[in-house]
Amino acid sequence: MTTENPSTPSRASIERLLRPRSIAIVGASDKPGALGASVLANLERSAFTGTIHLINPKRDEIGGRRCLASIDDLPDDVDTAVLAIPRAAVLNSVKALARRRVGSTVIFSAGFAEGGEEGLAEQREISRIAADAEMMVQGPNCLGMVNHINRIPLTFIETEVTPLGDRPGIGIVSQSGAMAAVLGVTFASRELGLSYSVSTGNEAGSGVEDYVEFLLEDSSTRVIAMIVEQFRKPARFLATARKAREMGKAIVLLHPGKSSAARESAATHTGAMAGDYRVMRVSVERAGVIFAETLEELGDIAEILLRCPNLSVTGPAVLCESGAFKALALDLCDELGLHLPHLEDNNAPSLRAALPAFVGVSNPLDITAQGLVEPDLYRRTFAALFEDDRIGSVIACIIQTDPVTSGIKLPPILNAVEDYKPTKPVIFAGLDEGARFPVKYVAALREKGIAYFPSAERAFRALKRIDDFARRDFRQVDATGLAGIGHHLVTGVIPEYRSKEILAPLGIHFPKGRFVTNLQEAISAAEELTYPVVLKAQSAELNHKSDAGGVILGVADVVALEEGWKRLNSNIADHCPGLVLDGVLIESMGKRGVELIVGARNDPEWGPIVLAGFGGVTAEIHQDFRLLPPGLPLDAIVQELHLLKGAPLLRGFRGSSPLDVTAAAKIIATVGDLLVQEPMIAEIDLNPVVVYPEGEGAVALDALIVGGQNR
Amino acid sequence: MTTENPSTPSRASIERLLRPRSIAIVGASDKPGALGASVLANLERSAFTGTIHLINPKRDEIGGRRCLASIDDLPDDVDTAVLAIPRAAVLNSVKALARRRVGSTVIFSAGFAEGGEEGLAEQREISRIAADAEMMVQGPNCLGMVNHINRIPLTFIETEVTPLGDRPGIGIVSQSGAMAAVLGVTFASRELGLSYSVSTGNEAGSGVEDYVEFLLEDSSTRVIAMIVEQFRKPARFLATARKAREMGKAIVLLHPGKSSAARESAATHTGAMAGDYRVMRVSVERAGVIFAETLEELGDIAEILLRCPNLSVTGPAVLCESGAFKALALDLCDELGLHLPHLEDNNAPSLRAALPAFVGVSNPLDITAQGLVEPDLYRRTFAALFEDDRIGSVIACIIQTDPVTSGIKLPPILNAVEDYKPTKPVIFAGLDEGARFPVKYVAALREKGIAYFPSAERAFRALKRIDDFARRDFRQVDATGLAGIGHHLVTGVIPEYRSKEILAPLGIHFPKGRFVTNLQEAISAAEELTYPVVLKAQSAELNHKSDAGGVILGVADVVALEEGWKRLNSNIADHCPGLVLDGVLIESMGKRGVELIVGARNDPEWGPIVLAGFGGVTAEIHQDFRLLPPGLPLDAIVQELHLLKGAPLLRGFRGSSPLDVTAAAKIIATVGDLLVQEPMIAEIDLNPVVVYPEGEGAVALDALIVGGQNR
Repeated sequence: MTTENPSTPSRASIERLLRPRSIAIVGASDKPGALGASVLANLERSAFTGTIHLINPKRDEIGGRRCLASIDDLPDDVDTAVLAIPRAAVLNSVKALARRRVGSTVIFSAGFAEGGEEGLAEQREISRIAADAEMMVQGPNCLGMVNHINRIPLTFIETEVTPLGDRPGIGIVSQSGAMAAVLGVTFASRELGLSYSVSTGNEAGSGVEDYVEFLLEDSSTRVIAMIVEQFRKPARFLATARKAREMGKAIVLLHPGKSSAARESAATHTGAMAGDYRVMRVSVERAGVIFAETLEELGDIAEILLRCPNLSVTGPAVLCESGAFKALALDLCDELGLHLPHLEDNNAPSLRAALPAFVGVSNPLDITAQGLVEPDLYRRTFAALFEDDRIGSVIACIIQTDPVTSGIKLPPILNAVEDYKPTKPVIFAGLDEGARFPVKYVAALREKGIAYFPSAERAFRALKRIDDFARRDFRQVDATGLAGIGHHLVTGVIPEYRSKEILAPLGIHFPKGRFVTNLQEAISAAEELTYPVVLKAQSAELNHKSDAGGVILGVADVVALEEGWKRLNSNIADHCPGLVLDGVLIESMGKRGVELIVGARNDPEWGPIVLAGFGGVTAEIHQDFRLLPPGLPLDAIVQELHLLKGAPLLRGFRGSSPLDVTAAAKIIATVGDLLVQEPMIAEIDLNPVVVYPEGEGAVALDALIVGGQNR
Repeated sequence: MTTENPSTPSRASIERLLRPRSIAIVGASDKPGALGASVLANLERSAFTGTIHLINPKRDEIGGRRCLASIDDLPDDVDTAVLAIPRAAVLNSVKALARRRVGSTVIFSAGFAEGGEEGLAEQREISRIAADAEMMVQGPNCLGMVNHINRIPLTFIETEVTPLGDRPGIGIVSQSGAMAAVLGVTFASRELGLSYSVSTGNEAGSGVEDYVEFLLEDSSTRVIAMIVEQFRKPARFLATARKAREMGKAIVLLHPGKSSAARESAATHTGAMAGDYRVMRVSVERAGVIFAETLEELGDIAEILLRCPNLSVTGPAVLCESGAFKALALDLCDELGLHLPHLEDNNAPSLRAALPAFVGVSNPLDITAQGLVEPDLYRRTFAALFEDDRIGSVIACIIQTDPVTSGIKLPPILNAVEDYKPTKPVIFAGLDEGARFPVKYVAALREKGIAYFPSAERAFRALKRIDDFARRDFRQVDATGLAGIGHHLVTGVIPEYRSKEILAPLGIHFPKGRFVTNLQEAISAAEELTYPVVLKAQSAELNHKSDAGGVILGVADVVALEEGWKRLNSNIADHCPGLVLDGVLIESMGKRGVELIVGARNDPEWGPIVLAGFGGVTAEIHQDFRLLPPGLPLDAIVQELHLLKGAPLLRGFRGSSPLDVTAAAKIIATVGDLLVQEPMIAEIDLNPVVVYPEGEGAVALDALIVGGQNR
């Protein structure tokens, strides 16, 4: 209902908002606490060098600056106007700004789309006016933006702008203004540089997608941290995210909505109607975005990404000084699924040489408290880990104790970093959170590109997300040769026999079958197929044919066929009075095997998505399925199937043969390709797909296509 | 191999170690960095008021204190001697201490049980000598202890002892010395008072169990924080933990070993052989211990428990200032399974009255940024949450921003706490981790019993663990009336027909059956039972009778019976040449239903434990079972079964009837009671137990008892 795709502003108009040379404050004030006063104070504190126009009909001047009586008095070519005024005055002001051809406007006021029908209508009107005037709108219901590169805050939150300088920075893009501010404070406290921070609010005229696109072109921005409750331009975001990945810029996203309760909350609070979280997530991950699960993780991941941009597909080495913590680290890695490259005395000569005899090489590596006796052990150990290419990153879990103890450990560690200049991510994590660890060491570590974590376990969690990203398989197979079946399609349900006719030529195997319309044809068909056979009633109106008695299994001979034909027709007559069947599908009985379900749908927001999982009641209870984007190479699909909880069944459980997972993967690939090429297909359902032992293929016993007009 | 139960020291000897009035330092030194020097320096810095005896044959005095040449020169009644000497000298020193009747000794040196066979033998010798002399041993391979109440550090780690004073404190008990030190630093940084910190190392003469028992009697200790890799006296710890719970003292435990890799690590590093982690965990949780998963969590949980001792069974109210965070909090609570009491406009009049009209009552509650405009909103909201008895605790997720903003929010919050003096746990969590939040506010919050968390999500995780503990059902049903079957038992496998004879009188239902030894008896039995029947070969040697062809199902009539009898006997002859069957069990065919497995075993360390889960291949793959301690009331067992992932099957899935879960629970209860009363039983296996619709009971189709001598 309130889901609206805002128009897409041009890059030039985004520039006018994010790097304005002239700013109008509508509702200028000098009353402390007033929005207009705060905006002006921020600009003055940051020594904004452009032009500031103040508008307040009741004042001649504010703080020595002349006031204009109305928007209509503005000169030409004002880049942006901040509306620091009550909600009731917003619409008229937007009209006035459009008349004066102001480039963009920031609307703080709330109470629009999120506030009910009336607010929604007004917001739509704002969108329309702005689009017509090619005026960019940020908000309403937002906190504005801060440009840290040119030191321009356009927000009423008291803001200290720390100039980014030459450092790479993080761009913050959040729908929630509060969250944008929260991230700004957290990143600053970790001494992570910021490039821009933008809150988009209700997105009446510009959305998070637009700002991310802008940040891709900004050379100062290395990492983009996002908090989004709903993407209003999914396809655009996917394209932008793919581009970011190609450019080597990382996007970290925190997106509430996993729980149904969170979705309800989103619907009532920002006028956002969350889509299906899982479909969104699979699609966005596929495009190359890293998901954070919590605010803590968002900060932790962003810190590692910004300080250590060279990611590796091999896992971390964990260095620690305690056997108990080594065991805890193993538990944690096991729980997280974080793979630690195997190190032992026999496969790591440099490391072996670095360690005293009584310390065995392993990963995690426990160097014990020996480093206190012999501090050079730290330097040697770090050096050996830095030069080992099997090690993708290093988490050093160090007991800080106090400044004296840290003073023994840190110099050799810093020396090793200085000497070897590792390009792999290195994380220094304190085991004793809260220890008095000298700030000079934190600064020295950061200065050398090492992330400092006050506690260890959060470092592991964050690294796991990054490790997953680095290992993610982004190969994409383009669908070809399947187009052209669209003309078969109607809107609505296509019955089994027709669906199978459409799908069989694409290489999906079904049991041998004949579509018949009378008993005589059925008898010939059964003889041709050889008994036993199955009878299945066919009609577009018959969605659940089994429940209606429309499926007769195990028909052994002609007598049973005649009886079954009669029974099927009388069942249908009972359950669906008046229904005229298209006919009956006679099929050979399929051999038994392990049953999968394969489905696909064309999500109105995120496009085609394929579902594959185990069939049957237990699998349904265990929710054992995977969502797959189309275009995965066959081996990647096979890998995905092996991530199913029930995957041991595929590999041959308790003496049964390994199954033909590749055959199942081919069906999944075909279904995905078809949806990509035929947007007229809304849904496909193959249930069950029976998978046979390796080399014997996979057969779909049932098939259903739903046609439907798509975007 | 290295798992040894140390002897149990008396309380008096623990007192001599933990509150010594006279201390001998064997290996006294004034060389900076030497262990003996560090121990002495710690004692002097803490102004130890008792007697210190220094022993060093090469010195007359150290720092103005006279040196004794040998242990033999010590006076009578020395409470404790610290061995600050190399490993090689330890054994002889222990002998000398025993001769001098020293009360206790602390052994820092490593290289004993964890260092191989020779070290293990020496450690055993130390244990024996100490036990004979009634001398308490701490270590070897430990970091000693710190008594914060009487300001006595007995450790070589440079230690600042902060006197506890009148505050309640945390007692630290850790096998790992490094981890004890880590916890000490972390707790101190959170301004949590400490009572004692003890590291037990290899536990040659005293274990974690002994120190926990001591801490129960210590009035200053409110919370006990433990890091344990292996309990060497499981039964003793369980009894102590139960007592702690009765006394209202909380025990929080971090115990590595969840992953198999962690267990291996433990075996190689402290000479500890970890038991089965899951059995340990269920038993220890049942006794009332709270498990932490990480060091971070251990600190977080301990902080809440120490500051907020009044736990409640109702869930928390979450207060926040952002809709986006509200949605994130919902996700997190959903993921954690943290139940939030439902609050809405119509059921919370006080809260409704406290809020502005545009803020709806809900939980999480988003009060928006309105508090900045109207700070009294904080006071009113907190007050309403404090006085609402449905709210068990409050997590306030506050955006701190900067000192100015915090200065607006904190006074009304602190006022509310001052006025209402809430007894429920209250947590103040910063959303913007790292914000410059004035320390005076942190101090003020803590002073009023409010836990301060720099970030929010960790607070949720910690509260979830505490919430689980508060809700845990500790009712215990004592087994009665089942004793006296022990005389039936033999060591080793008891075949099905005998197992069923033993179990049937206890009220466990089996299919009707007759044990027969020849075909003629089989024919009469089958007629009596009515066909169809099942034939099952019976022998204590035949563990997998199905695999050997020893089970013939669906025998329909006398002809089939004769044929089946022949087939069964020839199968057995083929598969198990030479095996003489006891006979054959003829049973009625059981009706089909949902299959559970019920097993129980008498764990040599933790005692009886029952396993209940779903049967079948899929369930096995999904590892869908629960471990249950014996003695749970029937309704608690039913509740546990409803926690199975496949529980929807029990409740009636897709139109099937709800099942007789109570009947299954009765079987589980009986099996548990039996193991408690008959320690001669090592294992019981009922697989499958078929559960029928409500009111129709549950029947075990197969049964196996394994008898065995137990501790």
